[in-house]
Amino acid sequence: MRKGIATVSISGTLPEKLEAISAAKFDGIEVFDNDLVASTLSPGELAQRCVDLGLQIDLFQPIRDLEGLDPERFAAAMHRVSVKFDVMEALGVTLALVCSNATPEALNDVDLSAEQLARVGDAAREHGFTIAFEALAWGTHVNRLAQAWEIVRRTDHSSVGLAVDTFHLLARGDDATALADVPGDRIAFLQIADAPHMDTQLLEWSRHHRCFPGQGSFDLAAVVGPVIEKGYRGPLSLEIFSDIVREADARATALDAMRSLMHLEEELRRRWDAAGPSARPRVTLFDPPPPPDRVGPGFVEVAVSEDGDLAGLLGGLGFVRAGQHRSKRATWWRNGAADVILNASPDLEDRFARATHRPEVTGLGVEVADVAALGERAGALLWSRLKLRRGPDEVVLVGTDTPAGVHVFAAGSRGSRDDWRRDFVPEADGAPGDESGAFLGIDHVGYPMPFDVSDAEIAYYRTLFDLNAGPVSEFPEPRGRVRSRAVRRRDARPGHDVQVVLNVAESRGPTRWRGLDQVAFGVPDVCAAVTAARRAGVGMLRVPANYYIDLDARFSLGRHLLTLLREHDLFYDRTANGELLHAYTRTIAGKFYVELVERRGEYALFGGANTGFRLVAQAAQPEDARPAR
Amino acid sequence: MRKGIATVSISGTLPEKLEAISAAKFDGIEVFDNDLVASTLSPGELAQRCVDLGLQIDLFQPIRDLEGLDPERFAAAMHRVSVKFDVMEALGVTLALVCSNATPEALNDVDLSAEQLARVGDAAREHGFTIAFEALAWGTHVNRLAQAWEIVRRTDHSSVGLAVDTFHLLARGDDATALADVPGDRIAFLQIADAPHMDTQLLEWSRHHRCFPGQGSFDLAAVVGPVIEKGYRGPLSLEIFSDIVREADARATALDAMRSLMHLEEELRRRWDAAGPSARPRVTLFDPPPPPDRVGPGFVEVAVSEDGDLAGLLGGLGFVRAGQHRSKRATWWRNGAADVILNASPDLEDRFARATHRPEVTGLGVEVADVAALGERAGALLWSRLKLRRGPDEVVLVGTDTPAGVHVFAAGSRGSRDDWRRDFVPEADGAPGDESGAFLGIDHVGYPMPFDVSDAEIAYYRTLFDLNAGPVSEFPEPRGRVRSRAVRRRDARPGHDVQVVLNVAESRGPTRWRGLDQVAFGVPDVCAAVTAARRAGVGMLRVPANYYIDLDARFSLGRHLLTLLREHDLFYDRTANGELLHAYTRTIAGKFYVELVERRGEYALFGGANTGFRLVAQAAQPEDARPAR
Repeated sequence: MRKGIATVSISGTLPEKLEAISAAKFDGIEVFDNDLVASTLSPGELAQRCVDLGLQIDLFQPIRDLEGLDPERFAAAMHRVSVKFDVMEALGVTLALVCSNATPEALNDVDLSAEQLARVGDAAREHGFTIAFEALAWGTHVNRLAQAWEIVRRTDHSSVGLAVDTFHLLARGDDATALADVPGDRIAFLQIADAPHMDTQLLEWSRHHRCFPGQGSFDLAAVVGPVIEKGYRGPLSLEIFSDIVREADARATALDAMRSLMHLEEELRRRWDAAGPSARPRVTLFDPPPPPDRVGPGFVEVAVSEDGDLAGLLGGLGFVRAGQHRSKRATWWRNGAADVILNASPDLEDRFARATHRPEVTGLGVEVADVAALGERAGALLWSRLKLRRGPDEVVLVGTDTPAGVHVFAAGSRGSRDDWRRDFVPEADGAPGDESGAFLGIDHVGYPMPFDVSDAEIAYYRTLFDLNAGPVSEFPEPRGRVRSRAVRRRDARPGHDVQVVLNVAESRGPTRWRGLDQVAFGVPDVCAAVTAARRAGVGMLRVPANYYIDLDARFSLGRHLLTLLREHDLFYDRTANGELLHAYTRTIAGKFYVELVERRGEYALFGGANTGFRLVAQAAQPEDARPAR
Repeated sequence: MRKGIATVSISGTLPEKLEAISAAKFDGIEVFDNDLVASTLSPGELAQRCVDLGLQIDLFQPIRDLEGLDPERFAAAMHRVSVKFDVMEALGVTLALVCSNATPEALNDVDLSAEQLARVGDAAREHGFTIAFEALAWGTHVNRLAQAWEIVRRTDHSSVGLAVDTFHLLARGDDATALADVPGDRIAFLQIADAPHMDTQLLEWSRHHRCFPGQGSFDLAAVVGPVIEKGYRGPLSLEIFSDIVREADARATALDAMRSLMHLEEELRRRWDAAGPSARPRVTLFDPPPPPDRVGPGFVEVAVSEDGDLAGLLGGLGFVRAGQHRSKRATWWRNGAADVILNASPDLEDRFARATHRPEVTGLGVEVADVAALGERAGALLWSRLKLRRGPDEVVLVGTDTPAGVHVFAAGSRGSRDDWRRDFVPEADGAPGDESGAFLGIDHVGYPMPFDVSDAEIAYYRTLFDLNAGPVSEFPEPRGRVRSRAVRRRDARPGHDVQVVLNVAESRGPTRWRGLDQVAFGVPDVCAAVTAARRAGVGMLRVPANYYIDLDARFSLGRHLLTLLREHDLFYDRTANGELLHAYTRTIAGKFYVELVERRGEYALFGGANTGFRLVAQAAQPEDARPAR
């Protein structure tokens, strides 16, 4: 279907907005009147700019407060209409959005509203225009779709149609049933916005917290589907007012917006496919290869400045050299099912290229069944592909660059044709010795990002891999706070399914965000792992004694376990399903740290109860974790 | 009265918090348990640190979820109590805050709660402790003060008292009448917090948006007064959970907190004084000289790098040299009732010292009746005084440095002993010539600041000058948004009373905030003023043609006025009370701009309807306003 977006949904000046929208392959725009008024582009110049960029102007919006008016004020309103219709003539747009009266003076009189709207319709007809009437969720009297439709119905005017806005509809608690009596040909326009569930004022919610489809909690397909089934063939057009978008990069936002509509179309297709072949309307939908059924953790890649860098740390954590890359200056290190690649190549991609910043955890490898299909899917979704050098006969990986700048490499699973391990020449050290304490794999990874990137980062995992973000957890820091969301499959098993923790630091200090800062390995016995690491000289994070007093108060753990935890500087958490015992190294080069995670029973969380204490301890213990040579 | 603050109200590590609290002259603290648990200070070390800093530990808080418990779980709760009471022994604190059960499992049984609380009281009595029971506003069943009091009453236990928290009380819509039946000696502790009116979830509201007294919208004196009248003589203790405070500088926050309690005491004193001499309880209250009755605009001070700097701009705007400072490299420029001081002294205070940053609008002069009393008041409120050099027989000014770093100089009014003009040797140019277009004075000034400073900045004007901040206005920028509040007396007359607009830029770009960026002069005829300025080569801001089309749509202004506005690049606004016509220079050195303001009738706003358009125009027109030499 045609895809559009309102200019208010993108940051920057009007010309900047248009370029970003065009680059993201949108078909059309809604001209937000305030954007035009503030611009030095005349309406005619704007129209030409759109032609040059291959964009159609689908809608002019909004014209406010035109109905429910004291008749004495109606002439002034019609004057406004007349001036704005002249602007529309110059723009070459034939559809205007009229929203319900939100002033305190609005009169509660459906017939009066219908009569006034019909007169606006008369004026529209003279120009060959149509108006689409929308119930603002905070309209003084008209604030639900059924009310707007009743007024449109009473106008009985061929130039007056209904505008459906998913935000206004769903925010009032309505759903698609509100559309039951509306004939498809009276739906003049469909605006799409998502939003998180919030218990706040409607106006504040709408003006600041809308987001792109899939980023909020509305079931948009359940509204958009029926609108299309009714015969609506206008654009799927996004209108997002958001504090985040207002500050974000225009091009990134426009791409994010486009992908959200692609994802929405995928969801519509799935619903119609499930309902049987006859259910699907004859519309063109986005149809890439489906996301992988399972995304397993593969490896973490660390950019190092020389080959021996971090060997001491990894060795201290029980890793052994398992192989040397056939064509790159990269070595593969292994402890049980946990794999790490140290890459000393000078030609790493973009932001990680400079050796002075190394070591840095630059990338995450994941394992999927069909690498080629994933690559196709990434391209269709306009995700930015890394240009990977590849030696002869080497495995084809799909490398993407997430919005937060992490490199994600998709490879085949162990032993498959696309197994990344094939690119390494095995080394003797890599042979399994005593594997009793062997690591269980990569439990999870985490990384920081600025707040205006987090929605896009979540969208990356959702659209490409069909992984979902869990609820927001919030942790105080000594100077600020962190908001975290875990991205994973709902039924994820640690070590078997990838788990990524996204952290938005809200402190005002300079935000460092270059790659991953947290790498958590699953271990069978965290006490043994800590003892071995300490013995090898790895600097482990000390936990303050007060923590164990509090732990005793909360869990009545008993002297034996409490002593064990204290002696090994372990954090502890317990739920009805199981227990978590976890330890941290100090940070490495001030950039990242390793967590050792022992899960007992079916504990499925990440120890968030301890995060606040851990952050204070990390701030107080800046010493490097690497063993002295 | 004794003044205290909870450690959670201040950012930083626990030792940093304590130092900041001590430096702000607090008497005591509430130890927030999580702060202690995360700290490497043992309870005994913390106690010693407090002794060293002259701080008493007034309260240990909170112990959660101790009543309304399934009896099977009560033993675990008592274990928690026992461990925490041992911690309290080590801290040397005898009062613990117990808050109402907020877990979903809480049982709704007043007798059970009273019985369980009495058993906690028994344990407290063994230690010689008291517990203060508080109704959390989001407690599962016990969430209003009357409920908490009923439970405390039923315990009939001398070691169990009531905690009054102004936030929890007022957030539920209760007021002091809820305390009517509570004897004063059963109020074990008083916690004070303010908050803005918000239509949001209670927990979110409480955890993130509390603020210091006077910064929100609660009538705190109406609760704190009666509590004291009942005989409460414990500390006035602040407990603020706030996103802003969490990120702010610890010392600045602690001072801000202390001043808020001082201001609250002033308000209590005023209320009791108004009620007659017998009304006031025998307590010691903060009692500085009162704020000035009127604060008039005096001058703006601009730091320039050489004497002739900005002469072209000021001359172009109709200013003439009126005087030369007796002892400083400063000149006085005047246009009618508008005064500007150009200061080329190399030794300006602190952040404005470096000549490379000049020109910058560093300060605002205000006029008050009693300069000495204001100085005394500023000192009593712990506001930071500027050390001003003063030549022989020169006027004594009171210079303060606002939290956002603006220099505010208070002087006497025109012709008084403390008139700042006495320090200037008049110059011939300063004699009034044709004054028909003379400026009416400084209409208002504005300046930007980061969001975490705005509460403190508002507190500066409120506590020192008794000026109040109006509602928040919000404006979109090309990359972000600005939130503005006007600070002024409620019945302010422009030119006669100082008006300051505080702007918080929420865009993510580097925030420049060095002094004032907006200086608005009142003019009798803005068209004439613009014409004269243009003729003199001053670069005025161009307003896009689309703006006037929209203006016509909104106001039906008529061809004549519309042409006038367009030809002079004026912005326009109208209310029921009058009209505003205003023009802007382009920015000067990228730092500030001059606004020319013509008010017709009783228009009392600042043209906020035009701010969004002005911001876009300024971003698009970066050329300097200064005339070519």
